[in-house]
This record gives sequence, structure tokens and C-alpha cells, in this order.
Amino acid sequence: MKNKIVAIVGATGAVGQEFIGCIEQRGIPVKGLKLLASGRSAGKTAPFRGQTLTVEELKDDSFDGVDIALFSAGSGISRRYAPIAVKAGAVVVDNSSAFRMDDGVPLVVPEINGHRIADHKGIIANPNCSAITALVPLWPIHQKNPIRRLIISTYQAASGAGAAAMQELLDGTRAFLDGKPFEPKIMPHPYAFNVFSHNTAIDPDTGYNDEETKVMKETRKIFEDETIAISATCIRVPVLRAHSESITFTCDKPISEDEVRALLKSAPGVKIVDDRAGNYFPMPRDASGQGDILVGRIRKDLSDPSGHSISMFVAGDQLLKGAALNAVQIAELL
Amino acid sequence: MKNKIVAIVGATGAVGQEFIGCIEQRGIPVKGLKLLASGRSAGKTAPFRGQTLTVEELKDDSFDGVDIALFSAGSGISRRYAPIAVKAGAVVVDNSSAFRMDDGVPLVVPEINGHRIADHKGIIANPNCSAITALVPLWPIHQKNPIRRLIISTYQAASGAGAAAMQELLDGTRAFLDGKPFEPKIMPHPYAFNVFSHNTAIDPDTGYNDEETKVMKETRKIFEDETIAISATCIRVPVLRAHSESITFTCDKPISEDEVRALLKSAPGVKIVDDRAGNYFPMPRDASGQGDILVGRIRKDLSDPSGHSISMFVAGDQLLKGAALNAVQIAELL
Repeated sequence: MKNKIVAIVGATGAVGQEFIGCIEQRGIPVKGLKLLASGRSAGKTAPFRGQTLTVEELKDDSFDGVDIALFSAGSGISRRYAPIAVKAGAVVVDNSSAFRMDDGVPLVVPEINGHRIADHKGIIANPNCSAITALVPLWPIHQKNPIRRLIISTYQAASGAGAAAMQELLDGTRAFLDGKPFEPKIMPHPYAFNVFSHNTAIDPDTGYNDEETKVMKETRKIFEDETIAISATCIRVPVLRAHSESITFTCDKPISEDEVRALLKSAPGVKIVDDRAGNYFPMPRDASGQGDILVGRIRKDLSDPSGHSISMFVAGDQLLKGAALNAVQIAELL
Repeated sequence: MKNKIVAIVGATGAVGQEFIGCIEQRGIPVKGLKLLASGRSAGKTAPFRGQTLTVEELKDDSFDGVDIALFSAGSGISRRYAPIAVKAGAVVVDNSSAFRMDDGVPLVVPEINGHRIADHKGIIANPNCSAITALVPLWPIHQKNPIRRLIISTYQAASGAGAAAMQELLDGTRAFLDGKPFEPKIMPHPYAFNVFSHNTAIDPDTGYNDEETKVMKETRKIFEDETIAISATCIRVPVLRAHSESITFTCDKPISEDEVRALLKSAPGVKIVDDRAGNYFPMPRDASGQGDILVGRIRKDLSDPSGHSISMFVAGDQLLKGAALNAVQIAELL
């Protein structure tokens, strides 16, 4: 990204704002930053390194002169504008699910398969946030002792559904506390003091929702291992911006919790938070605002007497490592 | 309970209040209702069938003339006063964990092993709330096709830690929304918009916390099957009074989601909520205030290609079927 002109598509969204923050906080010397959004948001401003940048309306000619375009404005916008950006000479890092499973599109978590960036034909896809959160700590284990079975139950934050969903959680909660009626508009169910199955469509054949299907398919693509058997249950919890996950995995060979701890101790992007005596483990409140995936509750999975299985609990910032930070890390490797 | 003198120990607590509500709502013609609590709560009143009952201080002679004593005041109180109540001629239904694993004490979920009540020697134990919530829907399946492996991740409400914890969740959330500092006193971590590992001590050998150990041990005792391999991950979510659980189980023989649905359709205490087209599944907001365990997201566990495994998501009122209702159902069978 050094000395490059970078465009952010969806600059006023929850992830878009974090794109700006990541570039600033990481001190990346971009040559220029162009903020793009819908006509509705055009004219809004955002601070960047002491300057005030103005958001421009996303148009067909927006990418003239742009070297790198970071997209986070939904699959529809990505499908329409990413090819235009590529044609204009930009490399696209796309946070939507539009191109993730396309054969010619690398799906990259830098700690895992950063070398795949070299294969790109203009577009590099940023994986699903729940997938990234699980896979960063699972990769060092998988390399040493291949994971054969993976069961994930998520505790997902509002941020994955955007800034409006975060606000709806806050507004709905205040209404609940005040005993006032509240009609959710973004989420399909009341979110205050509630938990619900992820608000994506269910595949009528498998019974899995889109979010779960993404986690299962993307894991196999990122790990380049079509043989891993995976089941995900994706659930929304009333949390603002960090996802947590209860993970149980079975390895090819027996594995101990000490081995897992040793592998994760030096793993990039991972922070072990596993204080049994102090009852201190990964929490979304702690994960919020930091780039590492917190990993704890590392222990033998007692449902598998063979000793091949481990259970653990992880938490990671959905807007950072789950989205903006991972995309910026990809762009830095370009 | 018909024509019996019933005492409630811990009458001012969250479960104690539900004991009173269950007896009233189920129209059980008790001969008398005696409300007992600590000296601190003595003198408080509670409405019951249009009357106003006054809470008495729990003392050694409180059980004279009492036929049935429903305990929910913590393990310490149960250990001290349950034997006194039994000596005075009462049958104790105890909601604490004090006697659950004792050999001579039946651990009963009426839909599963109501016949075990006959074995009691004065004390019948009410199981852990997370165990009840999982086991009511698993039992009909286990009878038909024995469950060999069980993996549970919970989404537990504040109510399991009592009325003060529920109030702390509300107060902490309001403080968060108002941008004010808030120091939790009941829970070890901030609860507003957060998720944390269950606040019970961790066994240093296994790495499992007490809540998880209860779920694992009690399941085997209630199902009378020491061979089931179980792993539980117990997590608190900011929900007031209903627990949800993501459950994956493996049966002895292959099993289909249609078989599970057929078995659960007529199962007592179970309500199937599994609308894939409408994206409507079990939620704690819906489970709150009702006696049934809601079951949905019933689908093949894709991490087990053998076809022996199913995943599902359940929700049940922690204060009702998870505690007071189950105990009152036991007492009705006496």
C-alpha cells in the first residue's frame, strides 16, 4: 500500500470506518485515500491524519488512477463495481462474499495463506468473519496434526450486519429497559437480551444457513483441504462488535492441550487468554478493538475418549481481524 | 401436593418466586403454603391466590407439620436444613447441587425418569438447569437410538445466578448505554453486551468448570448410562431468564433429521420451533415464561459423514423447566 492510491468502497459503513482507522493506526504511507460510498453518503467527511476527507459518490469512473480498492459495501456493489475497478487497473480486496468461492480468486488470511495473494487476477477475497476468527488459531494446529473434524458454535455480534444493526441493538436495549415498544428494522427478531439463529437464509436441503455454509466452505478453501468435515451453528448474541466461538476439533493423531498451547503460544495473530484460577477467558468486550484472536478454555474434549479432540473458546473483533484489519493486511502484502 | 402442607425454602429468590407462581398457575390444591427465607427476608410478603403470605425466617423447627419442602436457597442451606426437614417428616425436593450425585438420592426429570421418585429416602434432587434443558428433548431420541457422544455449547441467562444477577445485568446495561461506570458485584465480569465463560470454578485437572461438570455427570445419572461421552462448554450471554444450547449428538445407529422430528413431535415437554423458510427458531425471549423446551435447527451434523449425528438448537426457561417447574412437577408426582 506504500505510495499507492487507495480507494475505500463503503467508506461510511462500520467496516469502511475501520479501513480508515487501520491504515492510519498502522502508519501505512499511502499516496492518497479516496473515500467512496452511495450518493446518499456523498459529501460526508472523515478525519484522516489530521486532514478531513470528503466522501465521493461511487461511480463507474471512480477508480481511475486507483491502485488498490478495499470493498465493503455488500455483495451487490462488489459484483457490479469490482470488475470496473480491476479494468481501471486497481487490485480489489473484497470483504463481501461475492467472489470468495470463485476458482480464480484467492481467499486469504495472511497468517495462513498469504502466499496465495500472488495468484490473484485482480480480485482477492477477504473471508467471512466467523471463518477468520476460528481459522487463525486452528491453522498452526492443522499444520502439525491435520484437523479431520470441526464443530463450531458461534456467539456473533451485531457488527456483522453493519453499523445500523449495532445502533438497533443499542436502541432496542434502551427501549426494553424503559419498558417502551421497539420494532426491529434491520434484524428479524428482537435483539435486546435475546439470542437468535443467524439472520441469513436457510438452505432447504441441508438446513444450514448462509453464514454457516460460508464458514464450512471457506475453511476448506483456505486450508486447501477438501476432506475436513465441518459443522457450524451460527447464532447472534447481543454483543456489539466481537464474535466468540465454541470450537471442538478432532485431529488425525492424538493431541494434548499442552501441545495446543505450545503451538498457539507463538502463533501470529493469536493471544492465549486461559487463566483457569482467575476464571479469565476470551470475552468479546476484551477482544473489541484489538487485532488478535483471543483463545482460551483449551482442554481435552471429553466427548472423544480417543484423545484426538480438543475444545476451546475464542473471541475476535469482527470489524478488525474479522473484516477491515484482515483486508488491510492483505493489501499490505500486495 | 394435593392437601399437603408445602414449604418453600428461599421463597424470596428468583426460583422461590416461581415455585409460588407454578403452584398457583397449575391450580394445585395445597393445604398450606409456608414461605421460608433468611432472617433478612423475613417479614416480606408474597401474594398467593388472593391472599398475602408472610415470609418466615428459616429455623430448625420450621418444618414441623410440613409434608413437602421445596428448596432453592443454595447448596449450603440445603446441606444444613434438608436433613432437618426430612427428620421432621417432610419430603425434600432440592434445587441445589448438594445431593444430586449422592447414591441414595433420585435425580429426576419427570418426563425422563419420574419412576425414580419412588426410590427416595427423603430427598429428591432437581437437576442442573442446563442439563434439564438439553435432556428433555434428547431422551426420546436416546430411548430409540442410544446417544453415544454429546457436545453441548450453552448460551446461559443471568437467572441461574439469581435475582440479583438479573438486576445487575439490567443495571450494568443501563450504565453502559448512559456511558457511566459500573462495577459488577455478582458476576466476575462486565455483563452488558458481553459474553463470558460460566462463573463457576474450573477443575484444574480437566479444565472444565463446575457447571460443565454438572451437565456431564448429571446426564449420565439421569439417563442411567455411564457410557455416554459428553463435553459441555458453558457460557453466559446477556439474557435474563432462558438458557439456549447448541447441541450435537451421535447415535448408535444412523439417524435422520426426519426421525428426530418425528420423535420430538409427540415428546412431553418439547415444542418444535423449526421454521426454515421464516427463519424462526428457538429464542430465549420466546422460551421465557413457558414450560416447554423449544427445539429447532434440527439438521444432519455435517461434521459426521457417517450419518449418525444430528445438530440442533434449544431454548428453555431457566427459572421454570430449568428449576421451579421441574421441582413442582416432581412434587406433584409424590
